[in-house]
Amino acid sequence: MIEIGKNAKQAAKTIANASTLLKNSMLEQISKALLDHEKEIIEENTKDVILAKINGMKPSLIDRLALTHERIVSMSNAVLEIVQLDDPIGEVLSMTKRPNGLLIGKKRVPMGVIGIIFEARPNVTVDAAALCLKAGSAVILKGGSDAIHSNKAIVRIMRDALTDIDKNCIQLIEDTSRESTMALMKMNQYVDLLIPRGGAGLIKAVVENATVPVIETGTGNCHIYVDETADIEMAIRILINAKTQRTGVCNAAESLLVHKNIADAFLPKAIQALSEAGCEIRGCERTRKYSDCVKTATVQDYATEYLDLILSVKIVDNLDEAIDHINLYSTGHSESIITNNYAHANRFLDEIDSAAVYVNASTRFTDGGEFGFGAEMGISTQKMHARGPMGLKEITTTKYIIYGNGQIR
Amino acid sequence: MIEIGKNAKQAAKTIANASTLLKNSMLEQISKALLDHEKEIIEENTKDVILAKINGMKPSLIDRLALTHERIVSMSNAVLEIVQLDDPIGEVLSMTKRPNGLLIGKKRVPMGVIGIIFEARPNVTVDAAALCLKAGSAVILKGGSDAIHSNKAIVRIMRDALTDIDKNCIQLIEDTSRESTMALMKMNQYVDLLIPRGGAGLIKAVVENATVPVIETGTGNCHIYVDETADIEMAIRILINAKTQRTGVCNAAESLLVHKNIADAFLPKAIQALSEAGCEIRGCERTRKYSDCVKTATVQDYATEYLDLILSVKIVDNLDEAIDHINLYSTGHSESIITNNYAHANRFLDEIDSAAVYVNASTRFTDGGEFGFGAEMGISTQKMHARGPMGLKEITTTKYIIYGNGQIR
Repeated sequence: MIEIGKNAKQAAKTIANASTLLKNSMLEQISKALLDHEKEIIEENTKDVILAKINGMKPSLIDRLALTHERIVSMSNAVLEIVQLDDPIGEVLSMTKRPNGLLIGKKRVPMGVIGIIFEARPNVTVDAAALCLKAGSAVILKGGSDAIHSNKAIVRIMRDALTDIDKNCIQLIEDTSRESTMALMKMNQYVDLLIPRGGAGLIKAVVENATVPVIETGTGNCHIYVDETADIEMAIRILINAKTQRTGVCNAAESLLVHKNIADAFLPKAIQALSEAGCEIRGCERTRKYSDCVKTATVQDYATEYLDLILSVKIVDNLDEAIDHINLYSTGHSESIITNNYAHANRFLDEIDSAAVYVNASTRFTDGGEFGFGAEMGISTQKMHARGPMGLKEITTTKYIIYGNGQIR
Repeated sequence: MIEIGKNAKQAAKTIANASTLLKNSMLEQISKALLDHEKEIIEENTKDVILAKINGMKPSLIDRLALTHERIVSMSNAVLEIVQLDDPIGEVLSMTKRPNGLLIGKKRVPMGVIGIIFEARPNVTVDAAALCLKAGSAVILKGGSDAIHSNKAIVRIMRDALTDIDKNCIQLIEDTSRESTMALMKMNQYVDLLIPRGGAGLIKAVVENATVPVIETGTGNCHIYVDETADIEMAIRILINAKTQRTGVCNAAESLLVHKNIADAFLPKAIQALSEAGCEIRGCERTRKYSDCVKTATVQDYATEYLDLILSVKIVDNLDEAIDHINLYSTGHSESIITNNYAHANRFLDEIDSAAVYVNASTRFTDGGEFGFGAEMGISTQKMHARGPMGLKEITTTKYIIYGNGQIR
């Protein structure tokens, strides 16, 4: 592990000052190499899929693990999209002249070495490596054991494509043990930033054990609040989209709050639409009066990110109760108010303490692509460094460059 | 401790949306209250000073601990300076319209609850509380046991001055045990950001034990590199300033590197000037040839932040050796090259991996006031969130506010 750390730190020096042209050329070679070695990738991936089936992995997870021709083309194209993005490195964000003549500039520079701990999806291996390379940082990847054959093949192919730059810009920790993960979390001398991408358990373990700086990502107990003055058709359209368009993602809605004065008009239609979409509903006592199909919601339900076709529902007396409920149970990811009341919209935007706060739109838009970043390294749910979708800029840092002509204090 | 956390979280809600006028008015009351209660503060501070003398504290530290009329006036004035600063909260940093009509804004918002762990200087108590209040966050202060009487008096006076806002915006952990510090470091549910301000030992303990997000501050093993083409008079002026103007501060120089081709012309004069300033010199073998007064530098010397009138010196063969040496031994705080070579200046700015990189100026300028921030919450030596001097903006976060009219994916 120390060897991997040292290699990464050394490689970070070469990539930090690489030109945009060189970085893009290496990314294009990676994109091409993935297509050229499709057969090898699929062979290795098949080993993972067979083992996953033997180990009784859930079909939905096996589906995320399995690679096909289309998925490899999509991985390869994702790298080309990163080529198209502006290079964030070198931009001078501000430059001011001080009274003593010092010229003080704030310049965007690479982070250095970024560690990524992730779970089963092999496409993360390519995405994360390509984003770090474009952002001028070396990356240390630690994938899950379920995808180890796929990851080893993909990383070998990507490294071979790095003909004109230190191959250690991309490294995979092949030892999938818990010990190697723990070691990575404590490599303060070599790792500048650690990003866990995966389920709540993984992220909790990293936050609790890491001594290197961490960005928490992903867990989203997202809320839709239907206010008294909501357009009912719009509210139902947004609710159904946020809850059912994709259920396994962090920006899907998990909880619905309804103002008591609109419940009679809204809830019967909402319950019908949710039921037609196959969604189980767990509600408060007042909600349960609207339909026999609504099960009882516990406090635990309100705190749960289902990632499934289940929705918790609560009727609230007013906006204050909605805001308090959300700030208590939310994971700080994405929340939306459906309203036509100007003051309520503004209070929701001001008082909800989450990374992305919406008025009259689906929470499903919290995504680097949808925000116009072009690609994404996860969605930060902490307040330090980056909050919300993280694009290339969010995995860089800055330094001050100061031009003097002999100044002393 | 949990009670303090809950109180802070509750208070953070009220201060988060307080108007600039209200925050400034509370700060003005704090400034006045400190002057009005000078006698009480000095009485309590005297207890700390007497105990410190009994416990054998170093005179330089007792000097930092002791409060006088002038120092209390200075603390009070520092609060008024924070009143004058622009309120960072509410600024919309960008707002873009997406093709689907969503209007996505990035807005600066308060961090929430900020924890500060600091050592003996009571003025930090006032500075930190006033900065957090202006930045819209509640603060939990944990001072050292050496200043506990002073800190309790100062915090009581500041809280009494918060007549129109939740007094729990400012709280002091009065239990100075190690256990309460450990508890604060793990209060993820209540603390959004933890900033340790103090010596290397304190900072290391926080980085290793905290599970809440931390910004490392302060340790500065700062370098001056005198390049082949340096203006010798300028180099000596900057060296003497950076090393001797104040020795106990993190932006003071601790190590000097000299290009071999300028050593004959520069070092004898530099050694003479340093000796006249009372500075001990520990050098490499080549340096020792220039004067008998130069002691032998060990590897440990090059890694040491002396915070004292001691300087390590090394002669290097070229710029590459200087850059490699600095990136190996530096704590990533501040480094300066003295040169007239354009390409060398640019390479130093590009390749030195520190928060502040200077050409032809003293490292002593790395300071919030000198950078024009008006006040400072310490100097970050990590790459995440903030790097270099931290002003008001650096203790805030952002959130995305999204205006829709029914958009779904």
